[in-house]
Amino acid sequence: MKMAELIQNKKIGKAHTKAELQYLVEGIVNNSIPDYQLSAWLMAVYFQNMNLEETAYITKLMTYSGDVLDFSDVGPIIGDKHSTGGVGDKTTLVFVPLMAACGIPMAKLSGRGLGFSGGTIDKLEAIPNFNATLSSSQFQEQVKKIKMAISAQSQSLAPADGKLYALRDVTQTVDSMPLIAASVLSKKFASGTNLIILDVKCGVGAFMEEPHKAIQLAKLMVEIGNRLNKHVLTVVTDMNQPLGFAVGNAIEVKEAIDTLQGKGPADLIELTLSLGSLALVKAKLAANTSQAKTMLENCLNNGKALDYFAKLIEYQGGNPKVIENPKLMPQAKIIKTLKVPDNLAQNIWIEDVNGKLIAIAAKALGAGREKKGDKINLAVGIEVLVKIGQKVSKNEPFAIIYADSDTAFAIAQDYVFQAVKFSCEIIKSPPLIIDSYE
Amino acid sequence: MKMAELIQNKKIGKAHTKAELQYLVEGIVNNSIPDYQLSAWLMAVYFQNMNLEETAYITKLMTYSGDVLDFSDVGPIIGDKHSTGGVGDKTTLVFVPLMAACGIPMAKLSGRGLGFSGGTIDKLEAIPNFNATLSSSQFQEQVKKIKMAISAQSQSLAPADGKLYALRDVTQTVDSMPLIAASVLSKKFASGTNLIILDVKCGVGAFMEEPHKAIQLAKLMVEIGNRLNKHVLTVVTDMNQPLGFAVGNAIEVKEAIDTLQGKGPADLIELTLSLGSLALVKAKLAANTSQAKTMLENCLNNGKALDYFAKLIEYQGGNPKVIENPKLMPQAKIIKTLKVPDNLAQNIWIEDVNGKLIAIAAKALGAGREKKGDKINLAVGIEVLVKIGQKVSKNEPFAIIYADSDTAFAIAQDYVFQAVKFSCEIIKSPPLIIDSYE
Repeated sequence: MKMAELIQNKKIGKAHTKAELQYLVEGIVNNSIPDYQLSAWLMAVYFQNMNLEETAYITKLMTYSGDVLDFSDVGPIIGDKHSTGGVGDKTTLVFVPLMAACGIPMAKLSGRGLGFSGGTIDKLEAIPNFNATLSSSQFQEQVKKIKMAISAQSQSLAPADGKLYALRDVTQTVDSMPLIAASVLSKKFASGTNLIILDVKCGVGAFMEEPHKAIQLAKLMVEIGNRLNKHVLTVVTDMNQPLGFAVGNAIEVKEAIDTLQGKGPADLIELTLSLGSLALVKAKLAANTSQAKTMLENCLNNGKALDYFAKLIEYQGGNPKVIENPKLMPQAKIIKTLKVPDNLAQNIWIEDVNGKLIAIAAKALGAGREKKGDKINLAVGIEVLVKIGQKVSKNEPFAIIYADSDTAFAIAQDYVFQAVKFSCEIIKSPPLIIDSYE
Repeated sequence: MKMAELIQNKKIGKAHTKAELQYLVEGIVNNSIPDYQLSAWLMAVYFQNMNLEETAYITKLMTYSGDVLDFSDVGPIIGDKHSTGGVGDKTTLVFVPLMAACGIPMAKLSGRGLGFSGGTIDKLEAIPNFNATLSSSQFQEQVKKIKMAISAQSQSLAPADGKLYALRDVTQTVDSMPLIAASVLSKKFASGTNLIILDVKCGVGAFMEEPHKAIQLAKLMVEIGNRLNKHVLTVVTDMNQPLGFAVGNAIEVKEAIDTLQGKGPADLIELTLSLGSLALVKAKLAANTSQAKTMLENCLNNGKALDYFAKLIEYQGGNPKVIENPKLMPQAKIIKTLKVPDNLAQNIWIEDVNGKLIAIAAKALGAGREKKGDKINLAVGIEVLVKIGQKVSKNEPFAIIYADSDTAFAIAQDYVFQAVKFSCEIIKSPPLIIDSYE
C-alpha cells in the first residue's frame, strides 16, 4: 500500500478501508509517512469527509496508537468531561469533585488555553503549588485512592492524535468534523474512561460558531461511542456570551469555589446540573433526571462537593486553604469596576455580551496565550456581571477588570465596552442548553 | 502574511490576491514555506480551483522564479511545441526540424518518459552519442546558429515549478487544471519562446482521459497566453490509440525519420501538418492553412526537413548516419510479428487499439520507466500496424514486438492481444484532431 493511493482515494471521495486506515495510523506513529503527504490527505478529508464507519475506526486506531490507561480496579464506570472550549468555561473545576462526591470516579486529562479559549490546567495552576502534571501512574493511583484526578495530557496517550493535531494546526485542517471527533474521543478513550460527557459549545465565543455544526458534531461523537462500546453523552450549549461571570484564571477558580458552595452564577449551576444529571442517570446512580438533580444540589449545598475539591487540591500538592482564602492565589494590582453609562434611558437591557471580544480583552490583559508555550498571567481577567436579556440600571456595576498595568486595563476596558451592548428595549434571554444527545 | 492564511483563503474558495501569490512563489523559491503547508494548499487548489487571473499571474511569477532565456538576437518569433504526453508520440522529432526548415526557429526543452508516457529526450538518446543535455548557453548558441535545439529541462528555469511539481507528484495534486497550465506554460515562457503549440491529448492513453477536460485545459492555456502576451496555440487530439505505429525509443526515431521523408503513418503526418500550419499562419509565414500545408509537404518531400534533422543530430554530437542506417541505433534481440487470428470471419475490422495497454506492454518490455531515474531499454518496443476502423484479413501481420527476452516478449504479446480488438462489423475510424484554439 502507498500513501499516494490513500490520498487519491480520499480525493475522489472514496471511503477508506480498514486496512488503509491501519496503514495510515501506523505510518503516523512510526513516522514512515512524510508530513507533506499527511497534510494533503488532511485537506482531502476536509473536503470529502469520512463516514461514520471510517471515523469510528480511525478513532479506535488512534486510541490504541500508544498507551491506554486501565481503571478496571477502580470500578466499571470511569467518568470524564470535555468541553470543545469556550470563554469563562470553568465547569470542569466544579464538575469533577461534584461527580466524585456523587459516586462517579473521574479521570480527567485536560489541556492548556490557546487562542480565545481558556484551559483547565492553567486555571488550576493559579492554586499555589498545585501539580497539574501527574505521571500516568500518579494519575491512576490518585483516581484509585480518592476517585478523581485532573492532569495535563500525557504525550504517551494517543500519540497518533498528537502528531496529526500538530499538523492540522498549521495546515488549516482543524475544522473537519470527523477529524475533530476522532481527536477528542481517541484521547478520552486512551485515558481509560468510558462515561464521557461532552459539552459542544457554539456561538461567537466558541471554536464552532454555527449551532447546526455543533449538533452534527455532538451526534457524530455519540454514534462513535455507540460503535466502540463507550457511553458518550453530548450537550450542545450556547457560547455567545461567557459562561458564568469570571474570565481569567485565579478569578475563575474563585468562581468555581463559589459554585461548589451553591453560590455560583445561575448559568454555570444550570450547566453543571444538566451535565451531572445526564451522567448520574447513565451511570444508574439516579433513576431519573429530577432525582439526579436533587442529589447534585444536596452535594453542593451540604459541602460534600467542596470537600472533594479540597481533597483534590491537597492530593495534587496545592494549598486547600484557597477555598477559605482565595487571596492566596495571584492577585491583580488594579481592580476596577465598570458601570452602566448614565447617559442611557431609565430602563436598560443587556443586548449582547460578545464572548469573543471578552476573550480578546482577557488576552490583552495577559490571561490567555497567542501561541503554545507563551507565559500567561494567572491573576488578571474580567468579570462580566451581566447576562444577555438582563435588566440593569444606570451606574450599576456591570464588569470588573483585574489588570496588572494601566495600559492593559485601558485596552481591556475598550474591548469590554465593545462587547457589552445596552438596549432601551426588552431583550430576551437566550437559552443556555440547546440540546443533548445520548 | 502567513501561509496559513493563504491555505485558509483557498480552502474557503477565495481568489488569491497578487500579493498572496507573490508571497507564495517567493516562499517556494527561498524554501521558507514548509512542504506540509504547500501540499495542503495544493489540495485546496485541487478542490477550489484558481480563476484565470490567479492562474495567469502565478504562471508569470513561476516563469520569472529563475533564469529566463533570451532569444531576441535570433528573431521576433521563437517556436516551441509541447504535448501533454501520450503513447507513441514522436511528433516533436518531426516537428522541430520541419518548423526550422520552414523558417520558425525552435527552442525546445523536453522531458523524459514517465508512467505510460514516453519522453522525447529518451528517444533522442537512442541515436548514438546524441547529447540531449545542453547547458543554457549551448542551447541558446545552437538555436542562434542552426535555428533549432532539443534539450532536457534545465533546473535553473522556473525553479518554483520544479519544486511544486515534485510535491504535486507525491500528493496526488497533479490533475488540477490551473496547476497544469501554470506548470507547462511557466517552463515554456522561461525558455524564452513566444509561439507555443500545445498538443493536449485525451483518451485512455493520455493523462487526461475526458475530452471536455482536455478542451477546458486547451482554452485555459490560450487565455493565459493572451494575458501574458505570448502566442499560445492549442490542439486537442485523440490518444485512445497510439500515435503512428511505433511505441518505444529507437523504433520511434526510425518512424520519425520515415515521416520526415513523407513516408510516415497517416495520423502522424496529419497531426504534424495541422500543428505546423497553425504555427506558420500565426508566424505570418503563410497566408492561410492550405498554403501552409503545401509549404510543409514540400519540405517533407524535397528532403529539406530531413536535412535539418541530420543537422540537429550532428550539432548535438550524434551520428547523422542513423538516417540512412537506423540499425546504428540499439537493436532488439527478438523481433516477432503478430498476425490476425485465422479463426475469425472473412471480413474483419479493428475495433480497438488500447493505447494504455500498448504502453503497458512497452513498459513490460523495458521501454518505459516506473519511477524517475529508472534505466530504460532503448531497443525494445512495439509496432502496432493497424488503426481503429481499419479493415484487415486473417493472418495479416498487425503488430511487431521488439523484445530482449522471451519472458518479456510473452508478457508484451499478452497485453497486445488484450489491446487490439477485432470485430466482424464495420467500425468507424475516430477523428484524430478534435479541435484547435488560438
